[in-house]
Amino acid sequence: MWEQFYEKLDQMYDQMVEDRRYLHQHPELSFEEKETAQFIKNRYDQLGIPYQDNIGGYGLVATLKGGKPGKTVALRADFDALPIHEENNVPYKSTVDGVMHACGHDGHTASLLAVAEAALEFQDEIPGTLVFLHQPAEEFAPGGAKPMIDDGALEGVDAVFGTHLWATSKLNKIEATYGAFMAGADRFTVTFQGKGGHGAMPHQTKDPVAMAGQAIVELQQIVSRRINPLQPAVLSIGKIEGGNAFNVIPDTTSLTGTVRILDKAVQDEIIQEMHNILDGIATSFGASYELDYVKGYPPVVNHEREASYYIDDATDIPGVNESEAVDPVMGGEDFAYYLEERPGAFFFTGANIEGHDYPHHHPKFDFDERALPTAAKALVHGVKRYQEDHSS
Amino acid sequence: MWEQFYEKLDQMYDQMVEDRRYLHQHPELSFEEKETAQFIKNRYDQLGIPYQDNIGGYGLVATLKGGKPGKTVALRADFDALPIHEENNVPYKSTVDGVMHACGHDGHTASLLAVAEAALEFQDEIPGTLVFLHQPAEEFAPGGAKPMIDDGALEGVDAVFGTHLWATSKLNKIEATYGAFMAGADRFTVTFQGKGGHGAMPHQTKDPVAMAGQAIVELQQIVSRRINPLQPAVLSIGKIEGGNAFNVIPDTTSLTGTVRILDKAVQDEIIQEMHNILDGIATSFGASYELDYVKGYPPVVNHEREASYYIDDATDIPGVNESEAVDPVMGGEDFAYYLEERPGAFFFTGANIEGHDYPHHHPKFDFDERALPTAAKALVHGVKRYQEDHSS
Amino acid sequence: MWEQFYEKLDQMYDQMVEDRRYLHQHPELSFEEKETAQFIKNRYDQLGIPYQDNIGGYGLVATLKGGKPGKTVALRADFDALPIHEENNVPYKSTVDGVMHACGHDGHTASLLAVAEAALEFQDEIPGTLVFLHQPAEEFAPGGAKPMIDDGALEGVDAVFGTHLWATSKLNKIEATYGAFMAGADRFTVTFQGKGGHGAMPHQTKDPVAMAGQAIVELQQIVSRRINPLQPAVLSIGKIEGGNAFNVIPDTTSLTGTVRILDKAVQDEIIQEMHNILDGIATSFGASYELDYVKGYPPVVNHEREASYYIDDATDIPGVNESEAVDPVMGGEDFAYYLEERPGAFFFTGANIEGHDYPHHHPKFDFDERALPTAAKALVHGVKRYQEDHSS
Amino acid sequence: MWEQFYEKLDQMYDQMVEDRRYLHQHPELSFEEKETAQFIKNRYDQLGIPYQDNIGGYGLVATLKGGKPGKTVALRADFDALPIHEENNVPYKSTVDGVMHACGHDGHTASLLAVAEAALEFQDEIPGTLVFLHQPAEEFAPGGAKPMIDDGALEGVDAVFGTHLWATSKLNKIEATYGAFMAGADRFTVTFQGKGGHGAMPHQTKDPVAMAGQAIVELQQIVSRRINPLQPAVLSIGKIEGGNAFNVIPDTTSLTGTVRILDKAVQDEIIQEMHNILDGIATSFGASYELDYVKGYPPVVNHEREASYYIDDATDIPGVNESEAVDPVMGGEDFAYYLEERPGAFFFTGANIEGHDYPHHHPKFDFDERALPTAAKALVHGVKRYQEDHSS
Repeated sequence: MWEQFYEKLDQMYDQMVEDRRYLHQHPELSFEEKETAQFIKNRYDQLGIPYQDNIGGYGLVATLKGGKPGKTVALRADFDALPIHEENNVPYKSTVDGVMHACGHDGHTASLLAVAEAALEFQDEIPGTLVFLHQPAEEFAPGGAKPMIDDGALEGVDAVFGTHLWATSKLNKIEATYGAFMAGADRFTVTFQGKGGHGAMPHQTKDPVAMAGQAIVELQQIVSRRINPLQPAVLSIGKIEGGNAFNVIPDTTSLTGTVRILDKAVQDEIIQEMHNILDGIATSFGASYELDYVKGYPPVVNHEREASYYIDDATDIPGVNESEAVDPVMGGEDFAYYLEERPGAFFFTGANIEGHDYPHHHPKFDFDERALPTAAKALVHGVKRYQEDHSS
Repeated sequence: MWEQFYEKLDQMYDQMVEDRRYLHQHPELSFEEKETAQFIKNRYDQLGIPYQDNIGGYGLVATLKGGKPGKTVALRADFDALPIHEENNVPYKSTVDGVMHACGHDGHTASLLAVAEAALEFQDEIPGTLVFLHQPAEEFAPGGAKPMIDDGALEGVDAVFGTHLWATSKLNKIEATYGAFMAGADRFTVTFQGKGGHGAMPHQTKDPVAMAGQAIVELQQIVSRRINPLQPAVLSIGKIEGGNAFNVIPDTTSLTGTVRILDKAVQDEIIQEMHNILDGIATSFGASYELDYVKGYPPVVNHEREASYYIDDATDIPGVNESEAVDPVMGGEDFAYYLEERPGAFFFTGANIEGHDYPHHHPKFDFDERALPTAAKALVHGVKRYQEDHSS
Repeated sequence: MWEQFYEKLDQMYDQMVEDRRYLHQHPELSFEEKETAQFIKNRYDQLGIPYQDNIGGYGLVATLKGGKPGKTVALRADFDALPIHEENNVPYKSTVDGVMHACGHDGHTASLLAVAEAALEFQDEIPGTLVFLHQPAEEFAPGGAKPMIDDGALEGVDAVFGTHLWATSKLNKIEATYGAFMAGADRFTVTFQGKGGHGAMPHQTKDPVAMAGQAIVELQQIVSRRINPLQPAVLSIGKIEGGNAFNVIPDTTSLTGTVRILDKAVQDEIIQEMHNILDGIATSFGASYELDYVKGYPPVVNHEREASYYIDDATDIPGVNESEAVDPVMGGEDFAYYLEERPGAFFFTGANIEGHDYPHHHPKFDFDERALPTAAKALVHGVKRYQEDHSS
Repeated sequence: MWEQFYEKLDQMYDQMVEDRRYLHQHPELSFEEKETAQFIKNRYDQLGIPYQDNIGGYGLVATLKGGKPGKTVALRADFDALPIHEENNVPYKSTVDGVMHACGHDGHTASLLAVAEAALEFQDEIPGTLVFLHQPAEEFAPGGAKPMIDDGALEGVDAVFGTHLWATSKLNKIEATYGAFMAGADRFTVTFQGKGGHGAMPHQTKDPVAMAGQAIVELQQIVSRRINPLQPAVLSIGKIEGGNAFNVIPDTTSLTGTVRILDKAVQDEIIQEMHNILDGIATSFGASYELDYVKGYPPVVNHEREASYYIDDATDIPGVNESEAVDPVMGGEDFAYYLEERPGAFFFTGANIEGHDYPHHHPKFDFDERALPTAAKALVHGVKRYQEDHSS
């Protein structure tokens, strides 16, 4: 049966591409994915697969009970887009200015919809129950996974699997790790409150632009000098903002950024050192600062046995010739919350377009659509292996 | 006659306040002062004083020929506002979000309109010709003065006077200098072109936020270490901008600011050192930068004899008890262009509200309206003294 | 026999303390350890154990052939001190101003001398051959291990073991790792060549102090932003130097420091980024720089089976109640070279004085002398286990 | 008589050169000029001119009473050298490693000795009294002028003149100003107290090298942003020092530098802002700092009438074809103290060697010796004009 399931998924390639491209052209920002949720809902209505919607916001949980006894296994796909203006010239280019599926969530959704549709055909032979988790707001903490779990998305679920199409990894290569796979990802905003005035008389101001400049430079000391060098960590500032006239020193400036860690133990140290540095700058200027630090997703930590399906056994998946236990990745993922609650694993499905090497979140990000059926089959492979391991 | 002229202006106090408050409530940004220009035009229409409009943009030049022989003397008031959101709680608060008369140009206009109206009453006795220069766009280089001159605003004019209400100087005190009075004021924008990417993988990017931070810090070396310390100069950044997501390192960032000098000789040295520093930063990151440097107004340099009217003779003006030859001010003024073409002087009319000490361009800027008739009388005083000095 | 060997070492506690204290009072800098080498030589002369001196500088290799068949196992102790001025008030305080055994090499030597002396007593029963490697200049790359190996110190040797007394680990706890244990350690000096002059006229100079300040700040970007965050790395500057008068800007300044890595692959990336940053600074000032980068010791990588003697089997050593597979340490060690040539392991012998928690290389560094016999026994334990594993 | 006096000085050129070169070869640091003082004393002994030695340290005050009535006029020459290693290849190169007359004090002394010797010849005709002030320690605050005054060097003196050979001004051109001529010159040392440790474990330290780097960069904000831009000021760091091993982070670092101002009012603002910035840095690191700030010489402010001798009348001096009222100079001079006590003036005697344009305090500093008789004549010219102005 599983072989036929895989074949069916391969045959659904055109439909996955069509779905993906439709979603790509109609991206919606995190927490605002109303139309995308409706699109998914319509599909389950057409298929006649029962679901609950508005789970943890725009989330949808569909359930397909198989004809054979077995465990309940959940598969997850996220569906939000990013505030990035697409720079690809492709027929399926985003139609929304400044919003783009620059992380492949359009593909995740297309793949999971195909799995659901194909599963109908094999329903009688499928062991246990399949749960399809369509999740909003992965890109923006506190994310969509946590509220979906809080709304009961994992009730009755025994294990959970998810994948990320990975544009910088070789097409159809599967990658995962045994332990920490993706980083804890926090969000912060620093606001300096100085005293504005005329640009020609800086000595009468407390210049928050100068404070921001110093902060950008000095916050980098944290990773390089103030935490254990064996603890991988990143602090990046993605957005700076302040003032609106060339000759007026503003009252305030702000810096917005992210912190990444692989071990939660280092998180509070980093926050403390941010305060130390920002306090030093404010002291120097006789000004003040505010640090709004939102602890985001915890690190994604794979469970050992389930991870092995994607490291040791991955080449069992038709179309996958290569798999690897890779280094952890500093990007965050709220899939972490599922793995804090249930056994399971998260893995990458390689989707590189040769010669088009733009990283995730880049205005020219794109992936090879031939990875879509691979991602679908690999999710099904997780179900298969988990049921095998748990059949008596 | 001049004494009666002064008295008339004192009697017009309420009208000046009304005009000033109307303009304060309806501010318009530089080069967009359509309604303000219409307001002024309407007034000259009512008064029946002939004028030319659309001079150098929204500028207006009105002419009143006196009944006695004499020179032609121009008086100038500027009328644009700033991109600042007013934070005063006053009945005449700006009604336009983010736009404010935070530099007193509303008052300049109210005073000059009063001079024009009062002059009608004394037209027969006035020697020579009065020219009223209502100028747009003083706040934003290349400014309004230059195009008005190019459109002929100074044709036939022998001398020119102008004032600035000065909120940080004592009410009704007159201040000026003999030579350089206000600074040359340039505008620049630095744009760093890096390579964006995911905030969690900074080593795959060329981070333009980091470049901006370094530039903010290092550009300050120019004034403190790279030019002659005897040359007063200022370099300020009024606006920083870059990125729009906390976890996406952008491709570019920009810094917009101003340079102030009192001697044109130092201007090219500063530009060269900006290039040196920005080139160093770009080199360090393997990235590139662009410096868009707009040479702005030259320094305002008063002519000696005309300046003496406002230093030695200023206490002849009714209501003025004090005058001073002050230090130059680092703010710029496109009045500089008039003084490059004609004899004349620019001076400050003190307008401090006791206990409300906010500098020009501050969201809480305001001035004591009792300075309005003083400014008007002081402009007339310039005409009087110039005619006296040039009557045979 | 081994149990008696261990007992003998415990009985030699007073002698180890005496030797250690003598050496502590007479520290010598790397490559200048003439008297220390003589002290060791005298001891072997007294014991009648044959040796070769002047091996790779002041190194000494002594050999004791056991009465039973077996492998040849080398044990190593280093003996140089540091340019640090001791701040401990102890009876055995350094008698040399500015030079101090602040890393425990005095103890390493005392322990190994005791092993040699005790071994004489059990010579007939000892399997194989013991080689005692007394090594100079561990603290200063290119170090003493490499020239000793080049001079043949490992000829005929089958395996090699070494320990470091570790003042920040619990007394008599053994610590090691299976793979990378200590970091690659490089040394660099950056020299900025500017143009000096009078401190009052900075614009006539190219200020190398300002360049040094920028370099100190910006070089920290490498670890935090320019290499893979999963690659542990450290760049520290230990010494800054420039100028000798308060009012004279010097022509040059220099920064001397160290780079640490756990994987050689990242080394060249770091050097390249140092050049990028220094080139950027020099460009900005119109000046030049020189980077003298000395690739130092490679990472210390333990061999798996030999490492297991100190992780799994360490509590077999009398007096050792605890052992742990710890995180790698960012400090460097030229023991790395021995492990590139021969199987073996390097481990820490915990030596913390409770309540006196000063790190290695601190002016108040000290260790608990009760660790001396433990270190000695643990070295012997390596020999015992290696002979057991290789007896037929 | 004055013309003959001038001619005599021209004839003494060879002797001035010889004296200057002897002194140049035997430089002594401030407060250590024992042999130089002896050299001067021997000369006055030979000439038989009475003097007092050990005035304010190694200072010497010689007095020559003229035969005619008149005022008492003092002429001053300083005689200390600098801690700079000479890089000129000249026959008269400094014979002391690391010490050099890099500021022309050797020439000042040679010129004044010639004036004294020549004056003997015209003693009967000289009006009033000549006082020769040979002053030590001009280069290092608190300097030699103050203690000489405290020891009575100006008792009975009516006016005082002094010159500086100026290597960057045209040969034999005289330069001065009417008011502030040279800057107030302060000296400071900043010491950061952190916590040292191993260079590989920066997170266990409070790195004073990093603090020093930040301070070098941020202290430049004071001049560029925190004081009135119309107030000329300089803050330079001439010496950085910290650590003595590449892999040991030290406990402390220090920065030594100078502050220059033309108006004493800005001095305390600068000190306050230094504290603000240093406190901010220490706060950021959880460390501490010490600022040892020594207020040095006040600005040199010329008296108007006496300054006019060197601006308006300077071309009366034989050999001087050009004079100029120049911009103030940011270098300091303890001649300031004499001018706080008595009327007088300080002026530059141009001494540029064409094509050898090294500033004062540079290892390649040198001056054209043809300026020596000019300096001597110009000092005498001050006496002449002062006596003329005060003869009844």
